This record gives sequence, C-alpha cells and structure tokens, in this order.
Amino acid sequence: MRNSFNERLDHLVGQLVNMSQLAAIAMRDATDALLTCDLALAERVITDDRMVDLARSTCESDAHLLLALQAPVAGDLRLVITALHSAESLERMGDLAQHVAETVRRRYPRQVLPTVLRPRFEAMGALAVTLAETAADAIRTREPELTGYAAEADGELNDLHRSLFAVLDYQDWAHGVGSAVDAVQLSQYYERFGDHAVSIVRRSGFITTGTMSREAS
Amino acid sequence: MRNSFNERLDHLVGQLVNMSQLAAIAMRDATDALLTCDLALAERVITDDRMVDLARSTCESDAHLLLALQAPVAGDLRLVITALHSAESLERMGDLAQHVAETVRRRYPRQVLPTVLRPRFEAMGALAVTLAETAADAIRTREPELTGYAAEADGELNDLHRSLFAVLDYQDWAHGVGSAVDAVQLSQYYERFGDHAVSIVRRSGFITTGTMSREAS
Repeated sequence: MRNSFNERLDHLVGQLVNMSQLAAIAMRDATDALLTCDLALAERVITDDRMVDLARSTCESDAHLLLALQAPVAGDLRLVITALHSAESLERMGDLAQHVAETVRRRYPRQVLPTVLRPRFEAMGALAVTLAETAADAIRTREPELTGYAAEADGELNDLHRSLFAVLDYQDWAHGVGSAVDAVQLSQYYERFGDHAVSIVRRSGFITTGTMSREAS
Repeated sequence: MRNSFNERLDHLVGQLVNMSQLAAIAMRDATDALLTCDLALAERVITDDRMVDLARSTCESDAHLLLALQAPVAGDLRLVITALHSAESLERMGDLAQHVAETVRRRYPRQVLPTVLRPRFEAMGALAVTLAETAADAIRTREPELTGYAAEADGELNDLHRSLFAVLDYQDWAHGVGSAVDAVQLSQYYERFGDHAVSIVRRSGFITTGTMSREAS
C-alpha cells in the first residue's frame, strides 16, 4: 500500500515536470514563430496545447484520488496540494504560449512586431523559457533556494514588460495603434507566464519548508 | 469531532462567499472610479485589496488544516479542493479590480477612456459584478445549474472584449496609442475577472456532481 502510494506520488511529480517542459517548449517555439513569422510553427504550438490541457486534467484526477484514497499528511499532503495548484498554473502557461502563437497566425503573413521591438521579445522569450525550466527543476528537487533565482528572472521579465509602455508612450511610435496593441498583449502573455512559473517555484519550496515564501500581488 | 468538522467546513464556505462579495464590490467600485474619474474611490479599491489577499491566505491555511487533520472524503473532499482553487481565483479577481483602479490613479486627473468607449466598459463592469455575485451564489448553494447562467454572462463579456479590437483596428481611432493600449489592458482585466468567476461556478457544481463541466481554454 505504502509503496504504491509513493509510486503514485512520484508519477504525479513526473507528470508535472513533463508539463513544465511542454510549457517551456511551447513558449520557445511560440517566440521563434513570432520572431521569424513562421506560421507552421505557430500552428504546431496551437495544436500541441491540447497535450498540456490533457496532462492537467490527468494530474488533477490523480491528485484527487490520492487525497481520497490515501489521506496523505505533512509533506506528502503539501505535495499533493502543490500539484493541484501547479497543474492549474502550467495549463495557464500553455494557454499563454498558445496566445502568442495565435497572434502570429492572426497577423500572418504580416510580421506582428516592428523591428525595433524584436530584441525585447527575444529577451522576454528567453527569460520565460528559463522560468518554465526552473519550475520543472523546482518540482523535481523541491529546492527552496530556486525561489530567489526564479524571482530574479521574473524581475527582469517584469522590467521589460513595464518599460514597453514607456516606448509606446513617449517615443515617436510610427507603427500604428494595432501594432502597439499587439505588442502590449504579447508582453502581458510573457509577464503572466513568468508569474505562474514563479508561483510554482514558490509552492514547490513550500513542500520542503511547510511555509510559503511571500507571493507578489 | 464531526460537528467541529462541519462547522469548519461551513466557516470555510462562509469565507469564500465573503471573498466573492469583496471581489464584486471591488470591481463595482473600480468601474465607478474609471467612469467618473474618482481618485479617492480608486485609492480605496487599491487599499482594500489587502483584505482579499488576507482572506485568501486564511482560507488556504484552513483548507490545509482540514485536509491534514480530518482527511475528508467524497463531497467534503471535493469541497475543500474547490475551496483551494476558488480562493486562488478570488484573490486574482481582487487583483484585477485593483489593476483597474491603478489605471485610474496612473492617468489622473485625465480620464482614462474616451467618451466613445465608456458605455462598453459600463456594460463590462456590470457583467463582471454579476459574475462575481454568481460565484458567491454558486459557492453557497453548489447549484450546478448556475454554470449555464455564468457561461452566458461570460460569453457577453468575451464578446465585448473581442469587439473592442475591431473598434481600435478599423475605425478612425483619434485618441492616440496610449489610450488604445489602456483600453485593451482594461478590457483584458474584465475578461479575465469573468473567466475566474466562471471557473469558480463550474468547480462549485463539481462539489455536487463529482464531474467537472468543461472549462473554456
């Protein structure tokens, strides 16, 4: 009974790690599609999001079953609760990568971003992928020290997001309203993706420590 | 023991209903502040969000304690799991109302929205408040039938959100890039607020039925 319980817990953790990796790949590909105006790649991101949605639903059923049949306590209980939250965040991260890809498809064959903004989104994409990979590490290792690392990357991502408004507000924006609106929406997708990843890292630390580090509001 | 358990469950439900009502009030006041350019009201929404954040943290601790000490099963277990998810969604709803209020503060004494967009946001505000109130009803009654009602209101909210892009894209937009960007961001806050409310209503139905109605992606 105990062995089967531990195997189920390990399986749950494995599924979440897998979901984090899928989210990282989705955001990497969506960003590539955005920067190179690659419709086929964008379509693949959109189609593959179903895998993340399915994985989330499986994780959730497994977690419910563990709670119902095994009534875990202490660290094991915290792990199952964290799994429920993380699965939800990971599904949202997949959705956000999908939203980036949908923007590429909607504007195709036009480039979504004017040249001046591309380096900014390349940097945001790299940070978002790093954050999803850090979430995978945090779920696997439950290492509370990863929180600081994730918070730092997320801080950079937030700075990039915030400074976009200065670019749109104060510079000579010659690329039209539609293009500004697209840029702001995209930037928000990256920013929210990062926030979800940080929340997973924080919660994974909670499995080990039993106390949550403070969440950004 | 059993009585104390039921009392704790009732208390948890009461806290969630209270949080939903706070979210409804926050969005109502934030929308009023937006439409009347009322800085004092916006400041109050921003300050009061702390109450929602605190309530979420209390709900979460209470739910963990119930899981750890009482190992609930079946409908009771589903209720506690739903409470965990709902508390998270309600905190996000509070944050979104706060973001609306922060936009008012950032642009003050300027009106955020051009006159042409105000009726649209008045309608979105009313729908968002209705959805938060429906979430409160769903948590209280666990009535699966509320899902259809909530989905309908959320559909109207999503239509309003989507049609904004047509207004910005194709009409003669004479109000500048900054104002278009503000409008899109605000519209997204309302749309996401509605999505969270619908997810609470769906999950509350799940307590009664044991099956989740399909979530919009």
